[in-house]
Amino acid sequence: MYRTRTSNSELDQLIQLLSKLPGFGPRSARRAVLHLVKKKDTLMKPLAASLASVAEHVHPCSTCGNLDVSDPCHICEDERRDKSTICVIEEVADLWALERAGSYRGLYHVLGGTLSALDGIGPDDLNIAGLIERADEEGVQEVIIATNATVDGQTTAHYITDRLKNSGVSVSRLAHGVPVGGELDYLDDGTLTAALNSRQPF
Amino acid sequence: MYRTRTSNSELDQLIQLLSKLPGFGPRSARRAVLHLVKKKDTLMKPLAASLASVAEHVHPCSTCGNLDVSDPCHICEDERRDKSTICVIEEVADLWALERAGSYRGLYHVLGGTLSALDGIGPDDLNIAGLIERADEEGVQEVIIATNATVDGQTTAHYITDRLKNSGVSVSRLAHGVPVGGELDYLDDGTLTAALNSRQPF
Repeated sequence: MYRTRTSNSELDQLIQLLSKLPGFGPRSARRAVLHLVKKKDTLMKPLAASLASVAEHVHPCSTCGNLDVSDPCHICEDERRDKSTICVIEEVADLWALERAGSYRGLYHVLGGTLSALDGIGPDDLNIAGLIERADEEGVQEVIIATNATVDGQTTAHYITDRLKNSGVSVSRLAHGVPVGGELDYLDDGTLTAALNSRQPF
Repeated sequence: MYRTRTSNSELDQLIQLLSKLPGFGPRSARRAVLHLVKKKDTLMKPLAASLASVAEHVHPCSTCGNLDVSDPCHICEDERRDKSTICVIEEVADLWALERAGSYRGLYHVLGGTLSALDGIGPDDLNIAGLIERADEEGVQEVIIATNATVDGQTTAHYITDRLKNSGVSVSRLAHGVPVGGELDYLDDGTLTAALNSRQPF
């Protein structure tokens, strides 16, 4: 009879929804709900409004897959960006990471994942056809493949390189090497080998 | 110029709000936002609605401090509960934990924290006056103090016991001992000593 979770169905529902967020479980969701109720006006109501607004206004760009309120997104629309270069990334999070780094001025193309035989994800499940189309457009000179350095990421990179063979664009990928600030002693053999092989004149 | 976090102010605002949740930082908030955008209809919109609804309808019970859509809350109102016993807890989360255990049938009293000299929290900052008032009400026979077994929790327990001296109710506290399923080898000395001292006839 009394064996409910919080003895309140509205709170239960909120806890259940929050516990579906990545990194959240039932316990942390309960803690978050209590925190939210304590900060009702400064956090809970703004969060509800912000979620509703993003759900309403933010959509993937039909050209590159970036999330934005406008379509095409502001990066595709930006006249100051270099339209001759397209950087291919797996997810929007990778686009954000590159934008935070602030050193890339070209366009992007979000694949939406990687090829994965295990998970049954083939070329048609990713936005690869869109990339091939864009690479054929006038003015595109280089495609930089910036998929993750995982097995699936590298497989996808090889597949895309193969598909772009006849398009006339040059295809490059991110360099492997020692992370800035990294210590050699903590690096894996593969990274060290790659860094040695790609050594640069000082 | 390009050095924004996600290059979209609505997304930035949502990430900033989410990163204020306990257990969330900027990185996990970004991950959560991408997850939410992917599950717009099944998670993001319901979550926005649920947050707005809880913010609108859920309030602390003016008697016991429990969170509910009604005031007095459904526990205070429930005729089947034992009105002679009041269990004193620090936070609503503790009430939820006791309700999940499902073995307590009395009423609750949420203090809203513990006394803490370091944080400058005195008796007037907690809902202690309300407890003293309730203990004087007709029919209340026992106050069970279930504050945490921390230094602050125990200090608060002692203070409340002292304040309840003249009210005529009996004051008890939760037993210390070996957690059910616990291994002696992993227990601290204090718990073992308490468990030994409070040993029960088999």
